[in-house]
Amino acid sequence: MAGNTYGKNFKITTWGESHGKAIGVVVDGCPAGVEISEDYIQEYLDLRKPGQSDFSTSRKESDKVEILSGVFEEKTTGTPISLIVKNQDQNSRDYSDISDIYRPGHADYTYEKKYDVRDYRGGGRASGRETVGRVIGGAIASLILREVGIEVSAYTKSIGDIEINYDNFDESLLTNALRIPDAEASANAEKALKDAMENKDSLGGVIECIVTGAPVGLGEPCFDKLDANLSKAVMSIGAIKGLEIGDGFEVAKMTGTANNDSFKNSNGEISKATNHSGGILGGISDGDDIVMRCAIKPTPSIASEQKTVDKDGNETTIKVTGRHDPIIVPRAVVVVESMVAITLVDALFENMHANLENIKKIYK
Amino acid sequence: MAGNTYGKNFKITTWGESHGKAIGVVVDGCPAGVEISEDYIQEYLDLRKPGQSDFSTSRKESDKVEILSGVFEEKTTGTPISLIVKNQDQNSRDYSDISDIYRPGHADYTYEKKYDVRDYRGGGRASGRETVGRVIGGAIASLILREVGIEVSAYTKSIGDIEINYDNFDESLLTNALRIPDAEASANAEKALKDAMENKDSLGGVIECIVTGAPVGLGEPCFDKLDANLSKAVMSIGAIKGLEIGDGFEVAKMTGTANNDSFKNSNGEISKATNHSGGILGGISDGDDIVMRCAIKPTPSIASEQKTVDKDGNETTIKVTGRHDPIIVPRAVVVVESMVAITLVDALFENMHANLENIKKIYK
Amino acid sequence: MAGNTYGKNFKITTWGESHGKAIGVVVDGCPAGVEISEDYIQEYLDLRKPGQSDFSTSRKESDKVEILSGVFEEKTTGTPISLIVKNQDQNSRDYSDISDIYRPGHADYTYEKKYDVRDYRGGGRASGRETVGRVIGGAIASLILREVGIEVSAYTKSIGDIEINYDNFDESLLTNALRIPDAEASANAEKALKDAMENKDSLGGVIECIVTGAPVGLGEPCFDKLDANLSKAVMSIGAIKGLEIGDGFEVAKMTGTANNDSFKNSNGEISKATNHSGGILGGISDGDDIVMRCAIKPTPSIASEQKTVDKDGNETTIKVTGRHDPIIVPRAVVVVESMVAITLVDALFENMHANLENIKKIYK
Amino acid sequence: MAGNTYGKNFKITTWGESHGKAIGVVVDGCPAGVEISEDYIQEYLDLRKPGQSDFSTSRKESDKVEILSGVFEEKTTGTPISLIVKNQDQNSRDYSDISDIYRPGHADYTYEKKYDVRDYRGGGRASGRETVGRVIGGAIASLILREVGIEVSAYTKSIGDIEINYDNFDESLLTNALRIPDAEASANAEKALKDAMENKDSLGGVIECIVTGAPVGLGEPCFDKLDANLSKAVMSIGAIKGLEIGDGFEVAKMTGTANNDSFKNSNGEISKATNHSGGILGGISDGDDIVMRCAIKPTPSIASEQKTVDKDGNETTIKVTGRHDPIIVPRAVVVVESMVAITLVDALFENMHANLENIKKIYK
Repeated sequence: MAGNTYGKNFKITTWGESHGKAIGVVVDGCPAGVEISEDYIQEYLDLRKPGQSDFSTSRKESDKVEILSGVFEEKTTGTPISLIVKNQDQNSRDYSDISDIYRPGHADYTYEKKYDVRDYRGGGRASGRETVGRVIGGAIASLILREVGIEVSAYTKSIGDIEINYDNFDESLLTNALRIPDAEASANAEKALKDAMENKDSLGGVIECIVTGAPVGLGEPCFDKLDANLSKAVMSIGAIKGLEIGDGFEVAKMTGTANNDSFKNSNGEISKATNHSGGILGGISDGDDIVMRCAIKPTPSIASEQKTVDKDGNETTIKVTGRHDPIIVPRAVVVVESMVAITLVDALFENMHANLENIKKIYK
Repeated sequence: MAGNTYGKNFKITTWGESHGKAIGVVVDGCPAGVEISEDYIQEYLDLRKPGQSDFSTSRKESDKVEILSGVFEEKTTGTPISLIVKNQDQNSRDYSDISDIYRPGHADYTYEKKYDVRDYRGGGRASGRETVGRVIGGAIASLILREVGIEVSAYTKSIGDIEINYDNFDESLLTNALRIPDAEASANAEKALKDAMENKDSLGGVIECIVTGAPVGLGEPCFDKLDANLSKAVMSIGAIKGLEIGDGFEVAKMTGTANNDSFKNSNGEISKATNHSGGILGGISDGDDIVMRCAIKPTPSIASEQKTVDKDGNETTIKVTGRHDPIIVPRAVVVVESMVAITLVDALFENMHANLENIKKIYK
Repeated sequence: MAGNTYGKNFKITTWGESHGKAIGVVVDGCPAGVEISEDYIQEYLDLRKPGQSDFSTSRKESDKVEILSGVFEEKTTGTPISLIVKNQDQNSRDYSDISDIYRPGHADYTYEKKYDVRDYRGGGRASGRETVGRVIGGAIASLILREVGIEVSAYTKSIGDIEINYDNFDESLLTNALRIPDAEASANAEKALKDAMENKDSLGGVIECIVTGAPVGLGEPCFDKLDANLSKAVMSIGAIKGLEIGDGFEVAKMTGTANNDSFKNSNGEISKATNHSGGILGGISDGDDIVMRCAIKPTPSIASEQKTVDKDGNETTIKVTGRHDPIIVPRAVVVVESMVAITLVDALFENMHANLENIKKIYK
Repeated sequence: MAGNTYGKNFKITTWGESHGKAIGVVVDGCPAGVEISEDYIQEYLDLRKPGQSDFSTSRKESDKVEILSGVFEEKTTGTPISLIVKNQDQNSRDYSDISDIYRPGHADYTYEKKYDVRDYRGGGRASGRETVGRVIGGAIASLILREVGIEVSAYTKSIGDIEINYDNFDESLLTNALRIPDAEASANAEKALKDAMENKDSLGGVIECIVTGAPVGLGEPCFDKLDANLSKAVMSIGAIKGLEIGDGFEVAKMTGTANNDSFKNSNGEISKATNHSGGILGGISDGDDIVMRCAIKPTPSIASEQKTVDKDGNETTIKVTGRHDPIIVPRAVVVVESMVAITLVDALFENMHANLENIKKIYK
């Protein structure tokens, strides 16, 4: 497993298991001169923390981030930024009930076969807790994006059968417990989640992410297309099973006439009349909003009885008890934003030497 | 643009424009000892060639592949394999009609803004012709996969509103003109395409890809998860706007009970009772069939009049005439297979040193 | 600066400044199943620690390493291993005397110009303290090498004008204060160093590194030749100004007859009669001992007065006082070993898929 | 072997064997807008071509380079530039004499063991002919360097015992047959080479390379230090056994007082009073000339009888007849320049996002 680094120019290397001593990230390639503080990162990190509502685990993860390097007098120095969050809730409960049994929908079985050994406490490295490092990296990436006018914003588009109505879109709700920017949909989703919990079951949903302010030119044909890299970034988050850009899967049923976006000139600015492309043409950002959606599966940890096998292959059953969210979606919103932000910073850097004129701007 | 290499251990570097002298690929990291011939690659390559039906362009691209290096006495030597296909149909037509106008749905505008210069002849590097190198790479990757019992197979799942019925699935149809393994759906799709052509329009569709025989253990947490890498691989193909694994976007509406796959023991072999996961758990192949689908947009080159602007920002209209497929899907089937095959070979290699026992198998 | 990760398959990402809160490393790509303990790493790390003799700084760096992730029940799990060493001796002395002045022979000036900002406390990231992470990584790499019979051993070959006499080579001296495996040379070097210190001056030297037990086949032509990668590995250590393999710079004055190594057959084993090549032919290990040497400059921190300029360009003078080793060489020995060990593990992994037979050994 | 790509942002991927159909390179990451022509590259390439003097092989390699992609209307477009040189002198001589015998000093044995198969014709991929792709890449890199005022210049510093006298340095001789910029040394070297040839022997030598005009700031601590990357670049050239920067191996015998370079202020410009550092401090270019030297071994192909073994391990002898240079050095001069140029372009690009101010220059 050497897959714990993401990014080419702006890189995060994450580490840590759910119930180890700590979890953290090294951010490398952050330019010097970015103002940064633990408080700012903490705010960002708090968006993924559990215990925010009835629908997220009651584990008390205070998740205090600490900067260990790379920042001097509150500015980045260009050296790697190491950040750590100590695991305070490594509860000492007995895991022997799951140490030898493969939980359905989890990575227990695949890790065991790949590595011959497995840290079974709370999912180990395959736990959602792994995303702490991604979110810290995203917080830092966002600081750079803001300096050039780019904003990344994601929200819950649907939970189970309940979907937002864009007519009711209310930005002020973006930080509510379910991250649903539509009061009515939010209320309905709460009800659906309560029902699911009563049934010892869980729900899935869709996150939508919008990037505003991206300049034309981000993305490198042909394998590092912006959409290709965004896909990898988002699909690398556990539990995500699908990703689409712009009209996404709908394009399969559209005609060229309907799907093509006309170009127009508004007061001297070239732009598209529509945005079926989702802000990316030929793998390169086209100046429009970048729009993507991803589908998240229902929490695999459910309290109902499920059939499975143990390490020795004996068939058995399991009920995954303990404190588990009945829905992953709301807490994943900031993780999606983070992976998108990191990918965009990387693309920004790569694009700086796309043509000779840019190079001369720096060196002459 | 330094994004023309794909893969970490098994790498393809593709090059070439639609109307340049030639197009090609360098395959690096192919192990020594693989039997290979131009005839074999040619067969594979012919699957993407145009002129196979009424629904693909009548351009005569004989597309003869030539091996220039890396093969000695019909076996790979471990050195880079350079393969070239000369562009025989660089027709000398006048491109001045499109040299200054941005075609909707194409990369003309984004390339121009990114690079300040653009090879406008037939789309240049952004042409679908770029996929020649991918398919050659995929042909070679498939040879390695076969040696270890892995098979990659893709087909057209839908075109516009017409979708295959799995009850009618007929493998013998996998190489028909539309790559639709269902005779009835195929006939209906042909009719729909004829209608689209008459309307000077085009259609999109969905490709499904199945991998059989993959061992448990492929994929590297946390950023190089197998699904993340497959997503990047497939989403890097032009015109693809969405990608899903297993139940994909459907998971958003499923409950945990329905989505989790139980484990069972069949005659001493652990396996899953269902395959909602699409063969990947926690980013690692779980031994089951790997299942993915992608959505392809309708061909953007359509003969109806579209609004657009020219280089100077003047609003104008364009009809994209010439020989263009009304559907991209069938020719993209082998491209999807190829990108998946390359990604799997890379994952196979990476997984070889996942645990100490494997390393000792080679060095002791 | 995104250059803080080294390795392709076995990777270290180091972080931390001389006088920050801590310094550390994330080791990614370590196979599962390697037995490991903090005690073992500590022993390795202690070899670079200061305060071991009259010739190394009296700073009390207890340098206690702590494993934060990736190890479960004393075995690696295949997940990233995060290791941290807290900086206990962040002495609170006033650095204002050097905060605005560029020390000759140091990176002060270049960091300032590149980043516009600089952590001037003790050299910041450019301090030799940065090598802590390399040594920890090397300790772990060595565990893997041992499993396949490879041993890496370095020592001081010369300090100033004093060079070891191979006739006096005494392995038992490899861990003496100066790492000189020749008692007489060691005594002479001690005297030379005392003289240098009295003169407020410092000395340089040469480290030689020998790898035994490496199989034929390590190294990937043409750019990832084993010697090329070893060169980068060693030359990336601060203060090293030259690197040679086998006969090294001597080859420039040799004839082909003298430099070529004949092959012979000893009891059925092919080997070379001599080892001018230093164990590498065509960039690939040839089964013989791998031999390399590197030159280390004299410590740039010297107490004599030197001319320099301040941040504003004013000419001034500086005496670098404080606790500084008059020689870097002995403490760098284990750093060289570490970088070589990491490079070899990476090459071992890469070579596993050099030919089809190896691949079948794992997957069939 | 996946080691045929060099560079991170500006990349070359080379391919081809000595006696295959052709040899070539794909240059990826070249910015758009660079004026380029086959004639220019040809001129550069001609500097490494054989048959230039009595001391290089009489093989007639016309080595005509052809651009196949990435250039439109004589300017780079940002897409990969594929360049090819057909092998015209694939003479059909019988290689069966060396197909089963390992030539001393060559890669025959190591390739055979690593890959189980070997293209024995003329050394295959391990031939010096592999450098054609490097030189083409270097020619293109040099175009970019010139745009920002950087010049790379190498020459023969010594052949055997004969070394240039800097007092006689004559730039006009830089393109003489032996690339020795000192008329007297050149004459002496010619004589020494004639003697070596008469003795059926060969000579080695040293190349020195100077970079002028490099700005302060190139190189990324800590593993991608400029000197580390230059070392890898140069040491990856076959036959090079040592590399040094600035005072190089001499530093081992210097004191800190002698080795440190003072800073001074000349008319408002900070610079160093001396250049022992060779233009690099802390892994970052310091604004001074970058100075390095490398040692090249004597040509291993010699006509005198040498002991060796065959494939089956039988001891035997070999005389390597045919057309071989008695010295590699002069033809390697342009190869060294090329690898240095490519490394510098890569460093230039990487440095563009070292601090926030630079990023704003491009995006605001």
